[in-house]
Amino acid sequence: MYQEGFATAIVPSGAAGAGLEDAFRPDFFKGVATVVGKLFTQVAPDFAIFGEKDYQQLRVVTQMARDLDLPLRVLGAPTVRETDGLAMSSRNVYLSANERAAAPVLHRVLTLCARKIGAGHAMATILSEGREAIARAGFALDYLEARHAETLAPIGSAKDGPVRLLVAAKLGKTRLIDNVGVK
Amino acid sequence: MYQEGFATAIVPSGAAGAGLEDAFRPDFFKGVATVVGKLFTQVAPDFAIFGEKDYQQLRVVTQMARDLDLPLRVLGAPTVRETDGLAMSSRNVYLSANERAAAPVLHRVLTLCARKIGAGHAMATILSEGREAIARAGFALDYLEARHAETLAPIGSAKDGPVRLLVAAKLGKTRLIDNVGVK
Repeated sequence: MYQEGFATAIVPSGAAGAGLEDAFRPDFFKGVATVVGKLFTQVAPDFAIFGEKDYQQLRVVTQMARDLDLPLRVLGAPTVRETDGLAMSSRNVYLSANERAAAPVLHRVLTLCARKIGAGHAMATILSEGREAIARAGFALDYLEARHAETLAPIGSAKDGPVRLLVAAKLGKTRLIDNVGVK
Repeated sequence: MYQEGFATAIVPSGAAGAGLEDAFRPDFFKGVATVVGKLFTQVAPDFAIFGEKDYQQLRVVTQMARDLDLPLRVLGAPTVRETDGLAMSSRNVYLSANERAAAPVLHRVLTLCARKIGAGHAMATILSEGREAIARAGFALDYLEARHAETLAPIGSAKDGPVRLLVAAKLGKTRLIDNVGVK
């Protein structure tokens, strides 16, 4: 994939690559955009499907493909969940029994916040309550944020939407992420 | 070329985009790589020809196309010169009669340096003499450097070549650039 002397990066320079996961893994999305961009030009697919669980990655890849005029469509696939709402992830096996019992709070809080924001409640207040609820359940919160669902630009009101809520938090040593759309 | 919300950059992250012109026009080659990358994916050409006069640009574009697996060949076209050796450029019309008379010194010094380095003389000494000769002819020198002809990495000896000599200097208000290979 990277031949000797490789020295080119595809850099997401807008909101999609800034903040959220980028604050915890600097330059991660530069690596994602570069390797996926190379893959797209090597394979020349008509479609590419990325899971919505890594929502920021989906938006970075979508924006990159659009901005660089790559002739394909990037599609998001809905997150697959356990019956209690926990997003499926290879990391879930690292959760202790107690942590596994607490883990669905993340999705529960997300959907509750989304419903309230969708019903017209003040976004900042709802997010603040959501952060407290997540902390009360024993999580160490990295972020709970509302962003524009396409550009991932910070957003202050549902009227400027569509809105996506994104969360990342640690339960013990296991870092979980999730996200939902506001309808 | 840039639709609303455009937020992706193709960044030359190696020696080809560093120093030389980049020191005088920061981020210039980021713009070049991005727009040419977009053009290449839009047009999907089999070949693209760039003049060797803008040698750093030629190397940035070549490296970008290779690194991103774009299915085309980038070719360099030799610099076209006046009979006295001055590289043809739209800027040459801005030279006064005296400046026009002095201008060919740039190419003369370049070819002399290339010949001496090719004959085994110490590169640092030859470049130092070349810089003095250019200054003596009335130029304000931006740089006279030897670089690896493909990667544009700094190079200390002709044995580590192929070597390209690159120069930029101002004559009055007119900035001229030129370059030659060492054989």
